[in-house]
Amino acid sequence: MAEIDPTMWASVLESARQVVLKTVPTPQIGPDQVLVQIKAVGVCGSDVHYYLDGRIGDFVVERPMILGHEAAGVIAQVGANVPADRLGQRVSIEPQHICRRCQQCKAGRYNLCEKIEFYATPPINGAFADYAPIDADFAHPIPDSLSFEAAALCEPLSVGIWSNKKAGTEPGSRLLIAGGGPIGIIIAQVAHAFGALEVIVSDVQAPRRELAKKFGADAVIDPAATDFGQLKVDAFIDASGAESAIAQGISAVRGDGRVVLVGMGPNSDQTLPTATIAARELVVTGIFRYANTWPTAIGLVSSGRVDLDSLVTGRFGLGEVRGALESTHDPSTLKSLVIPGLNEQRN
Amino acid sequence: MAEIDPTMWASVLESARQVVLKTVPTPQIGPDQVLVQIKAVGVCGSDVHYYLDGRIGDFVVERPMILGHEAAGVIAQVGANVPADRLGQRVSIEPQHICRRCQQCKAGRYNLCEKIEFYATPPINGAFADYAPIDADFAHPIPDSLSFEAAALCEPLSVGIWSNKKAGTEPGSRLLIAGGGPIGIIIAQVAHAFGALEVIVSDVQAPRRELAKKFGADAVIDPAATDFGQLKVDAFIDASGAESAIAQGISAVRGDGRVVLVGMGPNSDQTLPTATIAARELVVTGIFRYANTWPTAIGLVSSGRVDLDSLVTGRFGLGEVRGALESTHDPSTLKSLVIPGLNEQRN
Amino acid sequence: MAEIDPTMWASVLESARQVVLKTVPTPQIGPDQVLVQIKAVGVCGSDVHYYLDGRIGDFVVERPMILGHEAAGVIAQVGANVPADRLGQRVSIEPQHICRRCQQCKAGRYNLCEKIEFYATPPINGAFADYAPIDADFAHPIPDSLSFEAAALCEPLSVGIWSNKKAGTEPGSRLLIAGGGPIGIIIAQVAHAFGALEVIVSDVQAPRRELAKKFGADAVIDPAATDFGQLKVDAFIDASGAESAIAQGISAVRGDGRVVLVGMGPNSDQTLPTATIAARELVVTGIFRYANTWPTAIGLVSSGRVDLDSLVTGRFGLGEVRGALESTHDPSTLKSLVIPGLNEQRN
Amino acid sequence: MAEIDPTMWASVLESARQVVLKTVPTPQIGPDQVLVQIKAVGVCGSDVHYYLDGRIGDFVVERPMILGHEAAGVIAQVGANVPADRLGQRVSIEPQHICRRCQQCKAGRYNLCEKIEFYATPPINGAFADYAPIDADFAHPIPDSLSFEAAALCEPLSVGIWSNKKAGTEPGSRLLIAGGGPIGIIIAQVAHAFGALEVIVSDVQAPRRELAKKFGADAVIDPAATDFGQLKVDAFIDASGAESAIAQGISAVRGDGRVVLVGMGPNSDQTLPTATIAARELVVTGIFRYANTWPTAIGLVSSGRVDLDSLVTGRFGLGEVRGALESTHDPSTLKSLVIPGLNEQRN
Repeated sequence: MAEIDPTMWASVLESARQVVLKTVPTPQIGPDQVLVQIKAVGVCGSDVHYYLDGRIGDFVVERPMILGHEAAGVIAQVGANVPADRLGQRVSIEPQHICRRCQQCKAGRYNLCEKIEFYATPPINGAFADYAPIDADFAHPIPDSLSFEAAALCEPLSVGIWSNKKAGTEPGSRLLIAGGGPIGIIIAQVAHAFGALEVIVSDVQAPRRELAKKFGADAVIDPAATDFGQLKVDAFIDASGAESAIAQGISAVRGDGRVVLVGMGPNSDQTLPTATIAARELVVTGIFRYANTWPTAIGLVSSGRVDLDSLVTGRFGLGEVRGALESTHDPSTLKSLVIPGLNEQRN
Repeated sequence: MAEIDPTMWASVLESARQVVLKTVPTPQIGPDQVLVQIKAVGVCGSDVHYYLDGRIGDFVVERPMILGHEAAGVIAQVGANVPADRLGQRVSIEPQHICRRCQQCKAGRYNLCEKIEFYATPPINGAFADYAPIDADFAHPIPDSLSFEAAALCEPLSVGIWSNKKAGTEPGSRLLIAGGGPIGIIIAQVAHAFGALEVIVSDVQAPRRELAKKFGADAVIDPAATDFGQLKVDAFIDASGAESAIAQGISAVRGDGRVVLVGMGPNSDQTLPTATIAARELVVTGIFRYANTWPTAIGLVSSGRVDLDSLVTGRFGLGEVRGALESTHDPSTLKSLVIPGLNEQRN
Repeated sequence: MAEIDPTMWASVLESARQVVLKTVPTPQIGPDQVLVQIKAVGVCGSDVHYYLDGRIGDFVVERPMILGHEAAGVIAQVGANVPADRLGQRVSIEPQHICRRCQQCKAGRYNLCEKIEFYATPPINGAFADYAPIDADFAHPIPDSLSFEAAALCEPLSVGIWSNKKAGTEPGSRLLIAGGGPIGIIIAQVAHAFGALEVIVSDVQAPRRELAKKFGADAVIDPAATDFGQLKVDAFIDASGAESAIAQGISAVRGDGRVVLVGMGPNSDQTLPTATIAARELVVTGIFRYANTWPTAIGLVSSGRVDLDSLVTGRFGLGEVRGALESTHDPSTLKSLVIPGLNEQRN
Repeated sequence: MAEIDPTMWASVLESARQVVLKTVPTPQIGPDQVLVQIKAVGVCGSDVHYYLDGRIGDFVVERPMILGHEAAGVIAQVGANVPADRLGQRVSIEPQHICRRCQQCKAGRYNLCEKIEFYATPPINGAFADYAPIDADFAHPIPDSLSFEAAALCEPLSVGIWSNKKAGTEPGSRLLIAGGGPIGIIIAQVAHAFGALEVIVSDVQAPRRELAKKFGADAVIDPAATDFGQLKVDAFIDASGAESAIAQGISAVRGDGRVVLVGMGPNSDQTLPTATIAARELVVTGIFRYANTWPTAIGLVSSGRVDLDSLVTGRFGLGEVRGALESTHDPSTLKSLVIPGLNEQRN
């Protein structure tokens, strides 16, 4: 196999609003890891937050860091304990590193690992770069039929799967989703794959309602014109982070239904209708990433149950990460991708 | 069997703060019901609320109503479809009437029945009376060894069972309970019966902490002197209704833990630490009464796993219901009972 | 509304192999029931068993009985407690009558009701007749878009739904089904609706493998040519009743997988590979009809997730029930229906 | 810290019925492991099987091997990644080694790990020796109040916990256990700790029924004199391995109840009443060791909920392992322990 260059290109967030294309040392891998040559990386709202504010809550960018955690590529190097025949394998990256020894890991809830490290969460580097390291079992092989772009978007798809699992979506379910952005749309698509028969998306913006309708919702509603108490859905998934949307959504859920908080609002506390939660015995939870979702994600997209390729609305090179990040403010943007090598001239 | 008198004595809440002992028509029963001669009735916080305010939330006392929903007695009359040999049977009353035909009933969640009727919830009469009617299968036979007083308290015990089921209490669980009143204490006792190994009760009042310690807590804490984030309990059950206690309790729960809201606060909305709920994937729910708990309740108390008799701190006759209701404001009161026939001279 | 004739035509099983078209009294309904004018009834293997043998296990046809339990029609009469506006409503019949008061009913497992009565299970009459009575909440309204034939087949569809629920089928599941008959095919279709990504049907007969492939299997296998231990499916559902198929299927399931016994074999005992069950901690269960499946069934077929109309291979009048029953031995038959009024001349 | 001798004493099973006390190299530990100086080891039926037959099913003793997998001791050496302050810690050993990377491990079912290694299962050595190595997180710290003997018996206690989890034992449960040996007795004790209110033990031998009654059963029954169909228990746990006991036990379970196969019979296949399993929708499963049980085990025994010390009926030195193994045939033996250093004179 070809030698890996000791340095690589990466888009580095030096401080808030400062992303710079530069060469950095190529990451070293451990014996159970692989090094993935990155082919596509999605831009997520959290990347935008770190770019704009240099922090999300208690996580602060204190040193230069590489953003990007929705990534796919080709295995370029394997650690000592990893079979050599994985070299060249096309993979989707599950961008977390776990201890495998704490109580949460051993109980199968490794996303709640006490020592978890996650791409593009300070101080861990992400994938807006030529290469990124990951544990071998978190580099999930993909079929040839799957594009690298769709493979990168298995990460937000995993958010959609995990949300629907928490929501208990099952055949026949009626679901309300607040927020018609890319996550809301993916949640809606996954809900159908779980057998949901009616998926309603609520969004205050008409253009996003249109996109939601086009990409997966059975019905879209304008919250200003809706009597939520009449909906009586089996579950409500919030992908908006807005306190008012959450209160409305909760009022829409039937007795013993579920509420899943996916969107992150600006505040760490929110006012919820607790009397309704108790009187209907609603089950309210949130998600923190995902666990054991990748095989399902790859299966759903490979089988055509979920269509990720259509969600891509823009492609940017490593030197255009600023543009990729800022593109997300355009309401016509669904998903922007960073493609290392695109529009680039290295030498 | 002896004829049932067409009138009976009852303590009637005429309007807020007006309870009157008077004769009223003895209730008629349907073909699937029994009439229970009441032997003991517990006084609950909700009775006190209706007495003081004439309402709880949207439930308003618009007509004279009999309070009391924690009741036990002897079957004095059986409906046409009920076996005659149930006459004279000692029973604990599960004080709800359900439709048995709605989706919730057929799914086994009959406490969420769309047409539910509940003792002492307007406009349904309760059990501060000589007799009360109930569906035959909601009059649960009790062993001779069980006192009527303990049998009446199978109702709050059911709240404790249902709370612990929602909390997922299991052998080895560590549990935090906010509120050292009778419900908090019963929840603690039930938690031990479920196998919990450490049950911590938090209360702002030192005397209640002492009672909680005496009657079931492994440890009691003063919230003002506690770093809740260090507790890392498996579940938190709130029996206080206080917003600050709920926020503290939630911060004490480990990843993937449970939060159960049992206490009713003054407001229908409360501010919760939603970022913590999401980051730890906590499961937050509340309870609305209970379903299918009575056999377990009777078993727990009959077997001595839970001690209800010791919680009784006062006994009052039907003519002393005002005193029973007002006794609950005395911090040394744990549970007051109304005993029809006690301290009475009729005619 | 038109008067209901006091007599009706029915196909009566007088004794084994003796079915006779005759007039019988039209059933009387209770206050919570409706009388359904039957429009279509599927023929099930259990009907054939009663026809051929006069019994299934301990259930013996001791008196003349009407067969048929997969039925749909129009509400022709309503009981005193049923809203009059249900008259004329098109409905799919859930053919069971439950007590609603036993422990199983109140726990939401009404199919295990201690006093259950089921159409065409001695001595309860079924639906090969002009009319049949059913509790109002077990006459499930169907949309106009749904044919009576598909509505009748919501009964075997419910078997498919219940089987998949017991199998824990979820998005991404890999499933093995033994038996390529109508139930196996419906189970396969439902599995896809639940999100299964690979559904393998095993059958010893090549023609049935072809039908299974045509109507829903992703792959079909000849058991004689298969190494089941290599399959490592998430769940195995047996719709064959054959002991060898069950043993093979169990050997195909991954650790912590599920096994569901749907087919009924000739013997009440069967030899199972218990060492494998223990070593892999497999969960083995069976089904006894279904509970709370009709809303999902109607939704799945209305939305096109499941195609029942295509499974119909023959239609027979009430006077041709013998032919309908015997048609099931033809390997090209998938589902035969009895249509009251078809090919008939009454008077 | 003191140097560890490069050789140690161990009782080695050279071939069937040949156990020899000899010196062998002290095990080397990996960076995430600890070396435990063994203080007590329980004798299990599987040890006896290997001793008598040189095999259990497909697991064959092909090379000399050390038996014993119920062990406790003191940490004598720590690997490079293990905190040095664990030296000297008293621990109970969970005797399995897992890959932490396969699908089962990551789903929290590490007992089903595809690469699992287990003490005293060929070719892995067990703990009838001075020292044994184990991953640091599988050496569970115990409180000072816990004896090494009880700590060793946390292994069979884990079997009891896992069995009851699979059985769904909860407060109020009624349970039938077949087999009054040490495992049956521990299962019964754990059932009470889970809140079971009636635990019935069945055994064909009167002396074992007496022991079962003494150590935890609420009632004991002679299967020859029992109408199992009348018992209607919530769950049945088989700790006998006998086909007849399993069939009887299954017939005793109520609808939707559970059946757990713990005992290992002589055959890998057994005849089960499948018609009953289906008609009652029983859930039948088995156990393969356990996962995540040690914290609960240590808690149950530390808190006095389960009494393990009283089960010890004999103690043997490393040179007396043959006697320890053969003692299990004496019906008065409940649990024999091997205590390295006992009755020994080394050099």
